[in-house]
Amino acid sequence: MTDRPETTPQDEAKGQSLWGGRFSAKPAEIMQAINVSIGVDQRLWREDLTGSRAHCRMLADQGIIAAPDAEAILGGLDAIQAEIEAGTFPFRDAYEDIHMNVEARLSELIGEPSGRLHTARSRNDQVATDFRLWTRAACDRTIDQLTGLQRALLARAEAHAGDLMPGFTHLQPAQPVTFGHHLMAYVEMIGRDVGRFTDARARLNENPLGAAALAGSPFPIDRHATAKALGFDGPMRNSLDAVSARDFALEVIAAASICAGHLSRLAEEIVIWMTPQFGFVTLPDDLTTGSSIMPQKRNPDAAELVRAKTGRVMGAFIALSTVMKGLPLAYSKDMQEDKPPVFEAFDALDLAVGAMTAMVAALKPDTARMAEAAGYGFSTATDLADWLVRELNLPFRKAHHVTGAAVKQAEALGVDLAGLPLEELQKLEAGITADVYKVLTPEASCASRQSFGGTAPEQVRARIAEWKERLS
Amino acid sequence: MTDRPETTPQDEAKGQSLWGGRFSAKPAEIMQAINVSIGVDQRLWREDLTGSRAHCRMLADQGIIAAPDAEAILGGLDAIQAEIEAGTFPFRDAYEDIHMNVEARLSELIGEPSGRLHTARSRNDQVATDFRLWTRAACDRTIDQLTGLQRALLARAEAHAGDLMPGFTHLQPAQPVTFGHHLMAYVEMIGRDVGRFTDARARLNENPLGAAALAGSPFPIDRHATAKALGFDGPMRNSLDAVSARDFALEVIAAASICAGHLSRLAEEIVIWMTPQFGFVTLPDDLTTGSSIMPQKRNPDAAELVRAKTGRVMGAFIALSTVMKGLPLAYSKDMQEDKPPVFEAFDALDLAVGAMTAMVAALKPDTARMAEAAGYGFSTATDLADWLVRELNLPFRKAHHVTGAAVKQAEALGVDLAGLPLEELQKLEAGITADVYKVLTPEASCASRQSFGGTAPEQVRARIAEWKERLS
Amino acid sequence: MTDRPETTPQDEAKGQSLWGGRFSAKPAEIMQAINVSIGVDQRLWREDLTGSRAHCRMLADQGIIAAPDAEAILGGLDAIQAEIEAGTFPFRDAYEDIHMNVEARLSELIGEPSGRLHTARSRNDQVATDFRLWTRAACDRTIDQLTGLQRALLARAEAHAGDLMPGFTHLQPAQPVTFGHHLMAYVEMIGRDVGRFTDARARLNENPLGAAALAGSPFPIDRHATAKALGFDGPMRNSLDAVSARDFALEVIAAASICAGHLSRLAEEIVIWMTPQFGFVTLPDDLTTGSSIMPQKRNPDAAELVRAKTGRVMGAFIALSTVMKGLPLAYSKDMQEDKPPVFEAFDALDLAVGAMTAMVAALKPDTARMAEAAGYGFSTATDLADWLVRELNLPFRKAHHVTGAAVKQAEALGVDLAGLPLEELQKLEAGITADVYKVLTPEASCASRQSFGGTAPEQVRARIAEWKERLS
Amino acid sequence: MTDRPETTPQDEAKGQSLWGGRFSAKPAEIMQAINVSIGVDQRLWREDLTGSRAHCRMLADQGIIAAPDAEAILGGLDAIQAEIEAGTFPFRDAYEDIHMNVEARLSELIGEPSGRLHTARSRNDQVATDFRLWTRAACDRTIDQLTGLQRALLARAEAHAGDLMPGFTHLQPAQPVTFGHHLMAYVEMIGRDVGRFTDARARLNENPLGAAALAGSPFPIDRHATAKALGFDGPMRNSLDAVSARDFALEVIAAASICAGHLSRLAEEIVIWMTPQFGFVTLPDDLTTGSSIMPQKRNPDAAELVRAKTGRVMGAFIALSTVMKGLPLAYSKDMQEDKPPVFEAFDALDLAVGAMTAMVAALKPDTARMAEAAGYGFSTATDLADWLVRELNLPFRKAHHVTGAAVKQAEALGVDLAGLPLEELQKLEAGITADVYKVLTPEASCASRQSFGGTAPEQVRARIAEWKERLS
Repeated sequence: MTDRPETTPQDEAKGQSLWGGRFSAKPAEIMQAINVSIGVDQRLWREDLTGSRAHCRMLADQGIIAAPDAEAILGGLDAIQAEIEAGTFPFRDAYEDIHMNVEARLSELIGEPSGRLHTARSRNDQVATDFRLWTRAACDRTIDQLTGLQRALLARAEAHAGDLMPGFTHLQPAQPVTFGHHLMAYVEMIGRDVGRFTDARARLNENPLGAAALAGSPFPIDRHATAKALGFDGPMRNSLDAVSARDFALEVIAAASICAGHLSRLAEEIVIWMTPQFGFVTLPDDLTTGSSIMPQKRNPDAAELVRAKTGRVMGAFIALSTVMKGLPLAYSKDMQEDKPPVFEAFDALDLAVGAMTAMVAALKPDTARMAEAAGYGFSTATDLADWLVRELNLPFRKAHHVTGAAVKQAEALGVDLAGLPLEELQKLEAGITADVYKVLTPEASCASRQSFGGTAPEQVRARIAEWKERLS
Repeated sequence: MTDRPETTPQDEAKGQSLWGGRFSAKPAEIMQAINVSIGVDQRLWREDLTGSRAHCRMLADQGIIAAPDAEAILGGLDAIQAEIEAGTFPFRDAYEDIHMNVEARLSELIGEPSGRLHTARSRNDQVATDFRLWTRAACDRTIDQLTGLQRALLARAEAHAGDLMPGFTHLQPAQPVTFGHHLMAYVEMIGRDVGRFTDARARLNENPLGAAALAGSPFPIDRHATAKALGFDGPMRNSLDAVSARDFALEVIAAASICAGHLSRLAEEIVIWMTPQFGFVTLPDDLTTGSSIMPQKRNPDAAELVRAKTGRVMGAFIALSTVMKGLPLAYSKDMQEDKPPVFEAFDALDLAVGAMTAMVAALKPDTARMAEAAGYGFSTATDLADWLVRELNLPFRKAHHVTGAAVKQAEALGVDLAGLPLEELQKLEAGITADVYKVLTPEASCASRQSFGGTAPEQVRARIAEWKERLS
Repeated sequence: MTDRPETTPQDEAKGQSLWGGRFSAKPAEIMQAINVSIGVDQRLWREDLTGSRAHCRMLADQGIIAAPDAEAILGGLDAIQAEIEAGTFPFRDAYEDIHMNVEARLSELIGEPSGRLHTARSRNDQVATDFRLWTRAACDRTIDQLTGLQRALLARAEAHAGDLMPGFTHLQPAQPVTFGHHLMAYVEMIGRDVGRFTDARARLNENPLGAAALAGSPFPIDRHATAKALGFDGPMRNSLDAVSARDFALEVIAAASICAGHLSRLAEEIVIWMTPQFGFVTLPDDLTTGSSIMPQKRNPDAAELVRAKTGRVMGAFIALSTVMKGLPLAYSKDMQEDKPPVFEAFDALDLAVGAMTAMVAALKPDTARMAEAAGYGFSTATDLADWLVRELNLPFRKAHHVTGAAVKQAEALGVDLAGLPLEELQKLEAGITADVYKVLTPEASCASRQSFGGTAPEQVRARIAEWKERLS
Repeated sequence: MTDRPETTPQDEAKGQSLWGGRFSAKPAEIMQAINVSIGVDQRLWREDLTGSRAHCRMLADQGIIAAPDAEAILGGLDAIQAEIEAGTFPFRDAYEDIHMNVEARLSELIGEPSGRLHTARSRNDQVATDFRLWTRAACDRTIDQLTGLQRALLARAEAHAGDLMPGFTHLQPAQPVTFGHHLMAYVEMIGRDVGRFTDARARLNENPLGAAALAGSPFPIDRHATAKALGFDGPMRNSLDAVSARDFALEVIAAASICAGHLSRLAEEIVIWMTPQFGFVTLPDDLTTGSSIMPQKRNPDAAELVRAKTGRVMGAFIALSTVMKGLPLAYSKDMQEDKPPVFEAFDALDLAVGAMTAMVAALKPDTARMAEAAGYGFSTATDLADWLVRELNLPFRKAHHVTGAAVKQAEALGVDLAGLPLEELQKLEAGITADVYKVLTPEASCASRQSFGGTAPEQVRARIAEWKERLS
């Protein structure tokens, strides 16, 4: 994108170069190849038309252009929209980007009045406006999608609020939790992701239109009016900043990257849970892929692809951060490379959230197997230690030692903690009574963790109720 | 960090291994080397003590530990703080991290009661708490620093609100702006950076303490009380999430990365402006470095280093994002690698903001040279075009063509636009009158850009006034 | 990519699902959307046909399939190639990727024998083979392009081997160099880039074909024969590695990233050199873009875009590195995300090298202006110091001090070093004679730097001669 | 790093500023803080002394400095080495970096002759030389380490060349392989990593010394002599390139990043294999960490940390790539930020390779359990299909369909493929004979994969033998 192209499409047709009389040669082929962006930025067509309509109406309202000219322009823009929607609009590389394609077509359709639309505007503020509008809409879509994912998680969490599974640390069983509790952890993470997109959306919702090339305009434009028309909270306060800033794009990619990271964690879990060794969940046929010669296979492709998308989004953050590093004000052509990373990040996240929502809604837990696994690995040892503290007033570190010895003895005897005879326990700590066995089952362990946010089913259900309220 | 180490320091002294009786060998040397983190996380010492105090008081208030034990613990923690502040605290690799170092020392200082502090707590929630407290304070410091930078920019912008300089696009002169206007663009950028840190701080300000290892606690703890004591807005709502989440760390690094990118842009400008070819600004001796054999040199080292710090912060984002990608819940040891990126990002940003603030406060613009350069390159050509639109009602595209021809003629005659005789202009467009010359000076051009946020000095001053109000 | 799809296209036509009878539902829409890759991997069509031909001939030579079947298959593959080249090949999302599209079409064209082509082969080794073949060709193209850029640089360096310009450090003038010397620095950098692509190409040139799904094949295949037919140095030695490895892709992206970084440095210089303040070079109209209302503008868009492409390539490295991090053996679906980063990296580099070569060939240096600038800033101060060491045997540090004082005095008198009267110099160091003036001009300074690799024109020309020899 | 500092330490002691008389103020505190690098680059001390010795001897041999001065300098450098090794060397922030610290100390130790060492040298070529020497040695160490890891893998592979385990795709069982075969895949990957470090080492092994500040030297230095003395293959051919290039650093970080990625894959497998659900391997106590209250836990911390280190190395690549992006020639201060990423990358890789080697050497596979798992999931279905092709000449796609039906029937009957009665098989394909059962066991499946590089134990042993030869 350069500041302002000079020729009208008609000039072009007459054989003049795009950049006007002073240039004697057409852009070299390689220049054309590296410069053209219509293949990428045509995605902004709707925003470009929306921005032009608002600009046109404001120009007319301010008396900068005449009402009939404005009418002609608005009619032409409607015609262009119809062409694009019908798939008949002629996107042409010769016009480099979406803005010039629209302007060239407008000139073909309505002639001279088209030349008045660009009054008090430059491609620099135009593209910044279009891009913010697009990104704002993408944030809104993403927030909707993420809320959908939260709802899917909530529904499954509610159904399994009391179903036991092992809680892992280091992928080793640590303490029993409920499957609902585990899923609710992701509701929290996604909730913060929604918060990040919401904050980014609010911060970017300022109007660059009217900054013109970089210095503002001498025409009596009304930037507050275009801001209002376009749903912006107000005009940006510095014209150089308006055309130079891309932090809004970086912020949404960062939010997408963090969110993709969250999804990758659940995706990894699904991949692991679906192994025959774990066997915690299955996915229906339409969310896995198979293999004719290993027909038992239900490959968790969707989960793997969700996990992989993280790379794409992280790469997009680096791509645009690198582009922007060290760029002097105001507009530099480097910034034309701003759109691919943003589009890619949202596309990747869109697929990832969609696929994850489908998987969450469809996965079938084998609750019996998960419950059984919840008891592996002396997973209630902490409960024994806590009982010693609570009932016998042992210092925690001492209680740990006793527990360690108990586990060692249980291992030696080939039983789990609940299977250890009372006399064995009493050898280790004389005060232990039969009462202790009440805390040594996974069910009891889980039920006991009543602290706020703990895994006790009542706690889990209380959190689910709050979130349902919040999302309703 | 593993869930919970088992031995007391006394055990250790007696020759038992750190991980308790069931382990027969000491950690291999390489294991020790890759595992130890005290060299990094000792920076969390203050937060670790603060968190332990709050936990201890809550335990006592809830009757989970006895008041005298709590007294002893609090006294011990004070003694440890005094030792650390005095530089006499024995940081020991054998105790792996800051939490174990403190606990081991506490045991040495107060004996048995120390063993009760870890009741209803795990290192998993402890480190999450410490790290959030540290990050919150770092956000506060950064916000302060950035506000200081904004104040420095405002002061310089106010002094130069009307001083002309070239506005660049593509690093080519485009239209005249004022130096104050240029500086105010950075006030806007930094303002959004402050917004990002503010939002991140608000989002992270939740209390993980009480999540224990991962499942919550069976003790009647009061997580709202520790939240309040530690200045958190409330407890985190899911214990698995509380010990697993590091999105707060990624969010602040992303904010730091975007902010460092802003600083890199101004740094690049300073480097360019300080060349003899530009000669726009100089920096005092104490912010440059020299060379004995090229004594004229004032190398802009500080600006270059600010520019370079961007890389470090971007690298930190990738480092932690990569660590977190695909980690199953809850705590995995990978997450021990969370602190270096955060520390490095804040350290780099701290230096960069500090150095940039010093440069902004100290740089001496050569306003005469900048003003002269503002007239280079027919920089008022847009003003001619706009005049033709405004006064003669030409369509903008037509006005552009006339202007192009005028510039070509001026180039041929070796004059600037203001030096082009009226008859030459009238050859191109008969309606042009002598009135046009009023808009062809850089001063007039700049003064005319009265649109909201434009570079007209009144506009710049109005924005400065608003920001001063906002920051006061 | 999954291991092996099961149905023939005919089955599909009969309404069976892609994954065979055991699956009861068609892939959900989102699954289809996240899973399909034909839009990306159709770029591999030529390599896919080449690989299939080699595999088919080997199967026939080994007697694994019958000669008439092989004939039919080879005929069908030729027909497919003709269709693709004619643009009539039906690429279908339903067949997911290029491999299935080709196989499905082959079945339509030749019927039953098509079902024998996949004997002793899996998509896992097939895609690895295709991708290595594509990447190898891309390396070859890139090496050619880079050699072309070196030739362009050499030609310009030869023309300007003796033309003075300032040598910069910190973008401040340091010592005079020649423009040819400066350009030759890039010949060296690009030479190492060529070396990296050459090494990567050699390392990746091993044949994965015959690894089958992951374990090798029970058929008496001849992997050495297919390796030879496909130009590989030999078969990969471990079947798991053959289908799992993507380090070859990372290595070429890393090489591309480093190379793009080199190009970004020259691009930055061109942007700076083209400012009116520097005015060192101009680019012809067809390599810049203009602006109708600022017709003097020749925006260095191509240079800016070259500079920006660095971001894209760096992002690609992160994208694929992140995908591969922590993937267990052997093939995981995550690896389907391997191709976009590689394609993007080569596409970006292709444009960047092409544009840079065009700019190097076309840029017009203003040698008079550069030579004048070579004398700015007491740039021969080092020569004075060196003279003092050489002629008066002063220790270097002492000589530096004398020089520093001389420069200070010259600054005070408003002259350059060569303009400083002998008596002033002698006040600082009595032994100085009029002979010293011989070393104080930029020409003399430059000519004196005769050390190997120095900027003396003879040295520059000697290096040029060596490189011309090397590239001939 | 700036070109050349001017004052001697004695001057400094006399109160002169570091940058000489023309500077009136000491560097501001923030300037000092952002500028100082001695905390980082003191790691280069040995290389700095080595480089200085070679330079000194060359100066004397060329008659540029007198023999007694050279003697004094060499003696002083030895004394400094002794001080550093004894821990008595005074590292001082005031001298900014390692080069100035050494020079200042040399001056204190030997007086005036120290001032002659810097003849025909600048810090720009000095630091480039030091850094290349350091990196070269780091490559050598890494290659040694990686070869050690290969040896550990080979030893374990040899012991388990015939022990069955499941071969996975998508982490689902696919076909039986041997544990030795699996380990050998990593031998191949690490072999290519060694190749990358070897290539990088060869490419960087050129001598920048003598490039001086950027333009070469007028003294009759012999760069080939210093190259030889320092073990370089020859001098760099362009003085600007010599002081500007950091691609050597990026190349080694890229190699480290790819290598770390390989290690992360094996680390992930170890983490998964150690779950109770898999139970494939255990690690001894000294390579895991425990938890007192879950004493059964053997947390795979070392594997997790190895996996996490990938992030650090990838971050380092981005950090330095970003620093270098768009830097004009020759030296810019930004480049001072080159060392932390390189040091961090090698430090991280050093720990990761060390820990991985220890784990590989120590891990205890449960071969019975792995062998049992090798039969899960109809893992010999491909063998049935291949039998149908081989013995009955079915087209592969048809054979797949028959196999799919057989598996479906086996699932329905609750048996594995080998348990399916012959009449059931014959219902699906009349030609099947009892001979088919020979291929349906995991042992037979594995043994049949005799293609070069396949998993048949003979193949695995042949590859092991080749590698042992290669590494001997």
